[in-house]
Amino acid sequence: MLTSQNITGVVRRALAEDAPWGDVTSAAFIPAGTTAAAALIAREPGVFSGGEVFVAAFRELDPALRVELAAADGDTFAAGQALATVTGEARSILGAERVALNLVQRMSGIATLTARYVAEVAGTAARVVDTRKTTPGLRALERHAVRCGGGHNHRFSLSDAVLAKDNHLAVLTASGRSVTEVLLEVRAGLSHTTHLEVEVDHIDQIEPVLAGGVDTIMLDNFTLDELREGVALVAGRALIEASGNVSLETIGAIARTGVDVISVGALTHSVRALDLGLDIAVGA
Amino acid sequence: MLTSQNITGVVRRALAEDAPWGDVTSAAFIPAGTTAAAALIAREPGVFSGGEVFVAAFRELDPALRVELAAADGDTFAAGQALATVTGEARSILGAERVALNLVQRMSGIATLTARYVAEVAGTAARVVDTRKTTPGLRALERHAVRCGGGHNHRFSLSDAVLAKDNHLAVLTASGRSVTEVLLEVRAGLSHTTHLEVEVDHIDQIEPVLAGGVDTIMLDNFTLDELREGVALVAGRALIEASGNVSLETIGAIARTGVDVISVGALTHSVRALDLGLDIAVGA
Amino acid sequence: MLTSQNITGVVRRALAEDAPWGDVTSAAFIPAGTTAAAALIAREPGVFSGGEVFVAAFRELDPALRVELAAADGDTFAAGQALATVTGEARSILGAERVALNLVQRMSGIATLTARYVAEVAGTAARVVDTRKTTPGLRALERHAVRCGGGHNHRFSLSDAVLAKDNHLAVLTASGRSVTEVLLEVRAGLSHTTHLEVEVDHIDQIEPVLAGGVDTIMLDNFTLDELREGVALVAGRALIEASGNVSLETIGAIARTGVDVISVGALTHSVRALDLGLDIAVGA
Amino acid sequence: MLTSQNITGVVRRALAEDAPWGDVTSAAFIPAGTTAAAALIAREPGVFSGGEVFVAAFRELDPALRVELAAADGDTFAAGQALATVTGEARSILGAERVALNLVQRMSGIATLTARYVAEVAGTAARVVDTRKTTPGLRALERHAVRCGGGHNHRFSLSDAVLAKDNHLAVLTASGRSVTEVLLEVRAGLSHTTHLEVEVDHIDQIEPVLAGGVDTIMLDNFTLDELREGVALVAGRALIEASGNVSLETIGAIARTGVDVISVGALTHSVRALDLGLDIAVGA
Amino acid sequence: MLTSQNITGVVRRALAEDAPWGDVTSAAFIPAGTTAAAALIAREPGVFSGGEVFVAAFRELDPALRVELAAADGDTFAAGQALATVTGEARSILGAERVALNLVQRMSGIATLTARYVAEVAGTAARVVDTRKTTPGLRALERHAVRCGGGHNHRFSLSDAVLAKDNHLAVLTASGRSVTEVLLEVRAGLSHTTHLEVEVDHIDQIEPVLAGGVDTIMLDNFTLDELREGVALVAGRALIEASGNVSLETIGAIARTGVDVISVGALTHSVRALDLGLDIAVGA
Amino acid sequence: MLTSQNITGVVRRALAEDAPWGDVTSAAFIPAGTTAAAALIAREPGVFSGGEVFVAAFRELDPALRVELAAADGDTFAAGQALATVTGEARSILGAERVALNLVQRMSGIATLTARYVAEVAGTAARVVDTRKTTPGLRALERHAVRCGGGHNHRFSLSDAVLAKDNHLAVLTASGRSVTEVLLEVRAGLSHTTHLEVEVDHIDQIEPVLAGGVDTIMLDNFTLDELREGVALVAGRALIEASGNVSLETIGAIARTGVDVISVGALTHSVRALDLGLDIAVGA
Repeated sequence: MLTSQNITGVVRRALAEDAPWGDVTSAAFIPAGTTAAAALIAREPGVFSGGEVFVAAFRELDPALRVELAAADGDTFAAGQALATVTGEARSILGAERVALNLVQRMSGIATLTARYVAEVAGTAARVVDTRKTTPGLRALERHAVRCGGGHNHRFSLSDAVLAKDNHLAVLTASGRSVTEVLLEVRAGLSHTTHLEVEVDHIDQIEPVLAGGVDTIMLDNFTLDELREGVALVAGRALIEASGNVSLETIGAIARTGVDVISVGALTHSVRALDLGLDIAVGA
Repeated sequence: MLTSQNITGVVRRALAEDAPWGDVTSAAFIPAGTTAAAALIAREPGVFSGGEVFVAAFRELDPALRVELAAADGDTFAAGQALATVTGEARSILGAERVALNLVQRMSGIATLTARYVAEVAGTAARVVDTRKTTPGLRALERHAVRCGGGHNHRFSLSDAVLAKDNHLAVLTASGRSVTEVLLEVRAGLSHTTHLEVEVDHIDQIEPVLAGGVDTIMLDNFTLDELREGVALVAGRALIEASGNVSLETIGAIARTGVDVISVGALTHSVRALDLGLDIAVGA
Repeated sequence: MLTSQNITGVVRRALAEDAPWGDVTSAAFIPAGTTAAAALIAREPGVFSGGEVFVAAFRELDPALRVELAAADGDTFAAGQALATVTGEARSILGAERVALNLVQRMSGIATLTARYVAEVAGTAARVVDTRKTTPGLRALERHAVRCGGGHNHRFSLSDAVLAKDNHLAVLTASGRSVTEVLLEVRAGLSHTTHLEVEVDHIDQIEPVLAGGVDTIMLDNFTLDELREGVALVAGRALIEASGNVSLETIGAIARTGVDVISVGALTHSVRALDLGLDIAVGA
Repeated sequence: MLTSQNITGVVRRALAEDAPWGDVTSAAFIPAGTTAAAALIAREPGVFSGGEVFVAAFRELDPALRVELAAADGDTFAAGQALATVTGEARSILGAERVALNLVQRMSGIATLTARYVAEVAGTAARVVDTRKTTPGLRALERHAVRCGGGHNHRFSLSDAVLAKDNHLAVLTASGRSVTEVLLEVRAGLSHTTHLEVEVDHIDQIEPVLAGGVDTIMLDNFTLDELREGVALVAGRALIEASGNVSLETIGAIARTGVDVISVGALTHSVRALDLGLDIAVGA
Repeated sequence: MLTSQNITGVVRRALAEDAPWGDVTSAAFIPAGTTAAAALIAREPGVFSGGEVFVAAFRELDPALRVELAAADGDTFAAGQALATVTGEARSILGAERVALNLVQRMSGIATLTARYVAEVAGTAARVVDTRKTTPGLRALERHAVRCGGGHNHRFSLSDAVLAKDNHLAVLTASGRSVTEVLLEVRAGLSHTTHLEVEVDHIDQIEPVLAGGVDTIMLDNFTLDELREGVALVAGRALIEASGNVSLETIGAIARTGVDVISVGALTHSVRALDLGLDIAVGA
Repeated sequence: MLTSQNITGVVRRALAEDAPWGDVTSAAFIPAGTTAAAALIAREPGVFSGGEVFVAAFRELDPALRVELAAADGDTFAAGQALATVTGEARSILGAERVALNLVQRMSGIATLTARYVAEVAGTAARVVDTRKTTPGLRALERHAVRCGGGHNHRFSLSDAVLAKDNHLAVLTASGRSVTEVLLEVRAGLSHTTHLEVEVDHIDQIEPVLAGGVDTIMLDNFTLDELREGVALVAGRALIEASGNVSLETIGAIARTGVDVISVGALTHSVRALDLGLDIAVGA
């Protein structure tokens, strides 16, 4: 679901940032016309993401480079495995190397971490979803990486779905109206394609929120017991999202409470770049 | 050393990404004209970075918002400390909240991590520096964050300094010329303001590289013993940068070998967002 | 739900297009420093939309202009009514006049037409919604205008909701799987916030589509009798959208069949600019 | 006279607007690699405009698509006629379909309407011209469409020709100078390539304006009798433009008064999209 | 006739180019909060141009700077004269200094050179005009500078007027049609506001070109005698532009042949920056 | 060291500026499909620069044009020599001609002038360098041209090297600290790759500045005797840059004083476009 515009915008900005007026090292050491061959090698195991972005980084800088992918997005790989090859003008390969790596390491890091979370919920009906805690400017790419790791996406932005928190509800209920009444009115004003999700902090908020006709109810910072109680109470009348205090250690138990969706900010807000390296043979 | 253009470019892209056609939740729940007051609160201790960016995120969305910083970039703070306040139109505060947090959490995460590395080298002459392993599009901001944490910056990009690796040297020495000869020729062609740094992998490469007149010699993946030997051999004839296998556990010992510069990719390639939250009182 | 970025982008492009290197007429005839007062006057009755855009057109060209709105978006007005006033430098007012009018006439034209459609469905439960047949580059503004006229919005783009037509279904069912099976699988892969709408052309497609768990079923080019039959068959198991051959003459009867949503391409694909004029007194 | 930059700018913005983060429907239903064939079919007769734009919409999204035009801009076509074909990746065709149609329907709508106006003035020396009442961002395309329909263009913008109205003249004549004197002075300051057109509202303004040496005199809201009188009075000393209250019903009579140019805002300010459809066979 | 968009676009690009990631010198030496006062001083006499651009360079970088102009565009000044003052944050003044000077020196250089050409034609009816030989990206500014020096502008671009050379005519006359015939046909197809100018190289081309109804005839590389002959031949039936071999030494004699327009590429293609300096007192 | 992004950005802006809505002359006179052949011919001798930019101007407008370079950047050429050829669609060649020439004439003008300065310092160790007095928006291209002429580049921008003048030093020494002390402190805060250059106006400032550990000392407006004295005093402890009052007449003597670097603002601030012409044969 990445568009070429999503990719091109990021890659162009990154290349301009990394070489605003050329590469002084290559200009000094590498004669024009020198060719090279490079291989993208996994230094550790993981899940691949960002193949198209990797290709675009090289070909945006020099359309004459040949880039072949040896892994598809979502593939699992072992340490030592070759994931892609690049051949062509050495100056071009060296010029795009850092940008290509920075992006594919980050995306594969996200995919790999997501896959670990997804593995923890195996055997349950719960899905692992991302949040809006993404890197500014890279959201489309990072959400793609989450999908590569087997996760799902939450809403993309403030524009495409409603997620109401206590602050949102407080304003309208302050005037004496019930939560249910407010939600019914809000729903009537929303686009029919707009999903309505509401966050609750206590078990006794669930019933009035459900009566408001929400699509998803978010149980925020609930204990496992509270989650189980919530699942029983909702009884399929809405989807249930669990959020708060989700880690690799806790997510399995949360999933086994029966919730439908578990959102994990850590998928994107604290990314460790996966160790992928480019082995380059200049003159090859 | 951040420019307003550096900040504005990032913030505008982030706001457009996070609300391409408005905030459906606020539009539904928060009547226009409702005011709010918000405080940026540290949920954990750390080093602050990104104050100007935080301000810009809110004021770019709504120039009428009032944003006051209670901490300066580089300040250390405790958990629970208030770092900034925002007051004005509730819709505007909620609309910029996520973008502001995503940026300030990331920048403060980098500053805080950098400060930990810097603390490890206290009492030595070594400086901790970043690399080009930054997030595409955010390099100027992330390098600023490194400085907030007490670190220094390496070259910004491929354009502003030379960093030659084995691949670079191999091409020219392949034709039979010595490394020293090649480096002297390269230097003659560089701008007089361009720093010349060369990476070596073995101790016996040091002397010919020094004879080439470099400004900095990078000792890559040297053991501590090799580093000490290198420091003795260079004897002040060039700056020495250590790189490779640098972690919080190893950096102190590396610094005590007498090197001048230690580059740490982890400062920016694997950022954990610091836990800063925005406490919002709508209707306040 | 318009953002200032939505408005600013359109207005800047329009001003640059309309005066790429200045206004030769004003430069020749109007001495710098000459002031003027202008009023936006309705030459025919209608529903107002685009107030913020009107203000932005003038103030983007000259932040010193004072623009006061006398009508709010969504207000109904009579012929002859003053909707806004502008005062300040005459050159600036004349320079932004055409851009401001082009936008507010178009938006008010859409709002006014939408209101006529909405009036035709009064007393029914049906809502009038727009389509993706908007003017390239102006979608956010035109959808806002539809809301000003009392209409609702359909999905904004290809990214934020699913609308599957026969072509989409044909590919997967070609391999022998049933529509129901395909839809259940698709749903499992979608974000939990993504609305799933499927178009059908015949009454007997309804049951298998409903079994696939869709949120909305679109009955395309159904006769009134077929619509009534469809409404009875669906019986509240999904929302029903009617589309095709919708005009001011037909929409009332369509609404009375009991459908929930009626999409009208004509709201935006064939806009008549409303006749609003700017009465300018130079030297005032 | 359209440039590739005119077209590309519009098409890129439109594609980004219509799929900011991909096409969720195609991603769910159409496997990558599925091909399709599509034909652009006229559902009603008209005049074609926008062939290059149609091609660009598809090829900007996917340069591998093959697009063949079966009609040239300016060609008249019948209902049912095939105007273009597109073959290639089904996801790409479906992804650009709406943008391509929105543009070509609008442009052909303008061309077709223009042709009707032009037909009404057949046999006279009058030309039908557009105005600056175009859609913000699409002026170059809409003016091209007017030419496809047999119309001519007025000035493109405020920058490339003078069109002085009463407000412009009022400022300088307020100080006691005659219109003639003012116009002669203005002319002396204009670029020698800049056309000077002045609007008059009454027959007795014609002589002093002509004495000022204008290239074109615009007779605004003149009756047919007044136009005839104006034509006789001007007697070839300047071009004559008629404007105001021009419709398909009135333009023939206006043209027969002997005026040279008739400007018609309705050509672009109130466009009905022509009914052109894309018949797509996925898997073809 | 400069627009704020013309100015802002140039200034923003220039500031980003001159400080892509801040000013390392000011950051190191000038504490934040240090103020300064600066004066723009003429080191040589000339004609001022670029006041608005000078202001914009400083205020775009820092809206809090106060910039006062002591000269208006078009004013003549003596060596030593103060033309503007700037006060505020020292870092900001030093940060925009080079960009502001580069622009105002160039524009005033053009204005000053133009004024010398204009002085040479004093007492004749000829006007001095620029060409399209401007600096890419700065055309609007450079044409403004020509006007400040008392010159006039030729067409702005390929889009706003016709200038046909032998190559253009050759194609159509190759098929046996006369120049006159071709020009009459071309005129019929042009917008009524588009000026038609045709270049001729020999005296005997004049009559057929005039018969084609051109607005201006360009006599290219004519001797003074030929120009006089041409002026006599044209006899007011069209404007006459002389071009080719125009210098400060030759323009006076060319003007005295009676031509209307003399185009001078040197006004903009070979600019000497005027020596204007910024005297800065930091801490003032 | 030019990047394709450096070139493309300039060329696109220039083409849009030179033909915002097409080329009315070619549209009127040159039928689509007419081909042409063009040759870039030197009308005077010089040094070539801008080959890639010349190619890009044509191919950005029309990727189907064939452009062959007959000279490499840095080549010396004679009057009459052919430097490049272009073949393809005549409209495209005429449409990009002016932009291509404006750029290649300017760049070759800079290269040619630089070569003259470089020739004057032949036999000395001094290098000729440019300054930041470049044309806004064209810095990367103009610096490339300086290199083509045998010159070197100074720092690119305010961001990549320190150049401290009296104003910078005054602020910190005002508080009683010595220049040496201030410089040592500044150096400690700079990136290890950042070059530190300091300007001095008097011979007695040299010693304290050297003691501060600078890389380059700039001797501004020194007489030849003072320069010789400075060179002797510095004695290799830093690089020496001479600046001020450098012209073709003076640079030889300055170089013979033994300085290392001579900066020449005139290389870029006062460019004479070299006379290169495009001979076009339409229909060829």
